[in-house]
Amino acid sequence: MSQEEKLKWYGWGLVNKTFDLSRRHNFWPFLREKLELTSNETSLPIDISEIKLPASESSLASKFESLLGANAVSCDTLARLTHSMGKSYLDLIRIRKGQIKSPPDFVLYPETEDQVLKILQLANDLKIAVVPFGGGTSVVGGLEALKDSGHKAVLSLDLGSLNKVVSIDETSLLATIEAGMMGPALEKSLQAQGYTLGHYPQSFEFSSLGGWIAARSAGQQSNKYGRVEDMVSSLTIVNPLELITTLDAPASAAGPSIKQLLIGSEGIFGVITKAKMRVHKLPSIKNYRGILFKDFFSGAQAIRTIIQLGLEPATIRLSDELETGAFMKMRPESESMLENALSRSVKWYLKNRGYNESPCLMILGFEASDNNIKKDVGVALEICKNFDGLDLGLRVGQHWYKDRFALPYLRDTLLDNMIMIDTLETATTWSNFANLYKAVQNALISSIKSRNCSPMVFCHISHSYHDGASLYFTLLAKQIKGFEIEQWYEVKRAASDAIIKNGGTISHHHGVGRDHAPWAQLEHGKLAIAALNKVKQVFDPQGILNPGKLIT
Amino acid sequence: MSQEEKLKWYGWGLVNKTFDLSRRHNFWPFLREKLELTSNETSLPIDISEIKLPASESSLASKFESLLGANAVSCDTLARLTHSMGKSYLDLIRIRKGQIKSPPDFVLYPETEDQVLKILQLANDLKIAVVPFGGGTSVVGGLEALKDSGHKAVLSLDLGSLNKVVSIDETSLLATIEAGMMGPALEKSLQAQGYTLGHYPQSFEFSSLGGWIAARSAGQQSNKYGRVEDMVSSLTIVNPLELITTLDAPASAAGPSIKQLLIGSEGIFGVITKAKMRVHKLPSIKNYRGILFKDFFSGAQAIRTIIQLGLEPATIRLSDELETGAFMKMRPESESMLENALSRSVKWYLKNRGYNESPCLMILGFEASDNNIKKDVGVALEICKNFDGLDLGLRVGQHWYKDRFALPYLRDTLLDNMIMIDTLETATTWSNFANLYKAVQNALISSIKSRNCSPMVFCHISHSYHDGASLYFTLLAKQIKGFEIEQWYEVKRAASDAIIKNGGTISHHHGVGRDHAPWAQLEHGKLAIAALNKVKQVFDPQGILNPGKLIT
Repeated sequence: MSQEEKLKWYGWGLVNKTFDLSRRHNFWPFLREKLELTSNETSLPIDISEIKLPASESSLASKFESLLGANAVSCDTLARLTHSMGKSYLDLIRIRKGQIKSPPDFVLYPETEDQVLKILQLANDLKIAVVPFGGGTSVVGGLEALKDSGHKAVLSLDLGSLNKVVSIDETSLLATIEAGMMGPALEKSLQAQGYTLGHYPQSFEFSSLGGWIAARSAGQQSNKYGRVEDMVSSLTIVNPLELITTLDAPASAAGPSIKQLLIGSEGIFGVITKAKMRVHKLPSIKNYRGILFKDFFSGAQAIRTIIQLGLEPATIRLSDELETGAFMKMRPESESMLENALSRSVKWYLKNRGYNESPCLMILGFEASDNNIKKDVGVALEICKNFDGLDLGLRVGQHWYKDRFALPYLRDTLLDNMIMIDTLETATTWSNFANLYKAVQNALISSIKSRNCSPMVFCHISHSYHDGASLYFTLLAKQIKGFEIEQWYEVKRAASDAIIKNGGTISHHHGVGRDHAPWAQLEHGKLAIAALNKVKQVFDPQGILNPGKLIT
Repeated sequence: MSQEEKLKWYGWGLVNKTFDLSRRHNFWPFLREKLELTSNETSLPIDISEIKLPASESSLASKFESLLGANAVSCDTLARLTHSMGKSYLDLIRIRKGQIKSPPDFVLYPETEDQVLKILQLANDLKIAVVPFGGGTSVVGGLEALKDSGHKAVLSLDLGSLNKVVSIDETSLLATIEAGMMGPALEKSLQAQGYTLGHYPQSFEFSSLGGWIAARSAGQQSNKYGRVEDMVSSLTIVNPLELITTLDAPASAAGPSIKQLLIGSEGIFGVITKAKMRVHKLPSIKNYRGILFKDFFSGAQAIRTIIQLGLEPATIRLSDELETGAFMKMRPESESMLENALSRSVKWYLKNRGYNESPCLMILGFEASDNNIKKDVGVALEICKNFDGLDLGLRVGQHWYKDRFALPYLRDTLLDNMIMIDTLETATTWSNFANLYKAVQNALISSIKSRNCSPMVFCHISHSYHDGASLYFTLLAKQIKGFEIEQWYEVKRAASDAIIKNGGTISHHHGVGRDHAPWAQLEHGKLAIAALNKVKQVFDPQGILNPGKLIT
């Protein structure tokens, strides 16, 4: 079965997998109450046979067959459909209805770096727009197969066959890895040799190394292993003119960082084909636990204290009151440690200790290769205690760890039930943290309410730094039938405006793509964006690379 | 006394200070033997009264008086002289002879960011080249007051009056600091409030925050506190068009890093006026010690093991056999712990344990605010022991710490004695470390010998990383009278060619300036350099900013 057949074209992940709600009896009543859902109406994806894509420029496609062989060129409907966009809410509500305005004319599957270069040179000659495609999980419109009026066609360049760990330099702890390699295969290959990259974004199972680098991804364990831009020792990027490999020096003062100009460039300067990544010895010990705080800000203070002391938990995340409540409602009954912990007698105990009905849950995880971990865990727990953090022990942490990639599947179920569900993320300094949190929360709530919908907006700290933290928001509301897209745009605009107005970054780890581009311009200023445009002109003089993204 | 009067115009540091050789009786005999010096001839700097600078465009200077006041504009000889170049060997041998081909026409001393903007706008209108000037310690020609044929004049923009800590955000551990602030004043101000930046390049006493950022500096404690590019939360850069302040988010996925494009831009994209820097609580404990290794590579392996284990010494540096030998000869007799340690009886002891006559010295320093340090020191020493590292205790480390900014003064004495003395630095992966070390060493030795001089070339690891380390070379030879400049160019060219050919970066922390520009182009490739040129055109359309540097 091809990768396209294995995955849902209309949603997240594997065709046969859904988020299991069978033992989560509290979930729907909770959601129905909060979102004031009154009907049981559903809206399922259109049948694929009903989807009619615009005709493909198949004569142009055939010109690539001599470069790659006929098997590596596809004008097939499923191939075009699955490469037409990413996995954002906006993408899914359109694709579920079969609204595919701009599918790629064809999809190419190169197997070597040299083929990528030849593809780009031919596409450049033929004026065909090229959208690099890794795992296809962009949630910011980074993969929409757009073309400009000057382009004869648009092709999707699927890097899935560039999927090997090329070599491991065990002295320097560097692994050279092809860009199309997906998370699980990458970790499996490294771990078989005793190493890990330690990069686990929520999309891990279906996203690729190249995509992570292109979008400046951060993973759930990046507190310890670093964001992807910290992990890259060097990278190779192919543009229509040449193949650029940055130097693999561990540090350099040779002028502005070319590497940091290419990381996060989202395909507009070139196609990332491989990278030399900093890897680590596989940790033998993992210690993930749950800790309960009386409120969000005291938990945040505990995080700040832990990080500013120089401790390096792999994961330290803190849900606000509403998210903790939703998390509790979503635990399967039989396993619900947290629910148990809050069962009547425990609730009484907590109440006596000053915890109200809406505590906040922190997941605190340490990873190490030796027993150094014990002391760090002890210090961190002591700090949490100083902020009234109650250690719930390992099982809550282990449950989170086990389920940490499952949530995106739930989105499909919510869409079936006509619920708007989206996430967005930002970051700011600790001193601006409360201000930004409230501003974005208020913007989301007001915007949803302005359409007379009842909002659920919750948030967690997903990543923490010496000087600040990221805020990861989830928003839910019932869909306004027939106006799903407008409804989403209003909410997105309100949140993005609030982020920029209140000193946050438009993205902490999702990237810019098409959806964040107007606010990225506000964040960086016109001169910086003009500079990026000039850089693009150098690397991509004909403007064929991922048009309409990042700096439009 | 003005800053210019306090400092040597012809050499390093304070006018009345020299490197004290009075109790270092072994130094000169050692050097005379190694360099095969046969004459006692000296060559002292020209008398300043004999220096005739080219006439200044004083009519243009007066146009800036209305912006700044007459006191902030100087056509004075001493001002022009001290702003005509930096402190490289090439700079010093020229300035000592009074060979000042391109002094600035005048020097401006703005006191505010707004004045900097107005200066740049006026300079832009008048087509005057602008060389930003912080502490004046560039050793790569970054400050030479060059102009192109299109420029009417060249001015030096001295940022020394932008010298305040503007504010400290104690929640986020961020200090906003003006770019002209010098190391000692900066640390004094921060430390008075319980914080440190922890950035201590060897030039610390006379270099500025803006200079550090412009040149991607690294300090002697950057293993713990990070390189300067890691310390910058945001920066403000002024160009003739506008003032750009990057966002102070702790991390962002909003496209390529504009901040990392401006850091290391050496004045060609704009003038850095202030930065928000990540600061740390002042460490209460410092533990610096000396450790002796049998050879350079076993010491290097100990470093690699320590760093890859995740330990964070503030300083971990390792001198090769020759540098250790020179270091021993340079210790003042009465304090010479190391010499004592190697005194006859100790030598016998060491010999019995397998240490030969040429061991290698490591300086290992830990800093912390609490007693966590003990365990880390213990683990590091255990690792050293596994590589036959012999702990010499704290006094050797303390001596190094006390004298760590003194060495540049010695250069002036060597120049008086007609000795060529220069340093250069690079970095590479651990697996390429030995290859690069030998290649650069051989290139330096061959090049010096080709002029029939006897070389002294030594090296230390100055900074270490997960995946590699920097190599810091010092070279000495007797000067070839009348051909000092050619002699230096030959050596520099040989070393730089060897660095690039063998996979090193042309600079680990000195920067590019004018001297490294040709090799920076080789390192990054033509397309990347073309991209930087385009960025410059956006930020500096008339090309007035620091012409002839970085991307020439």
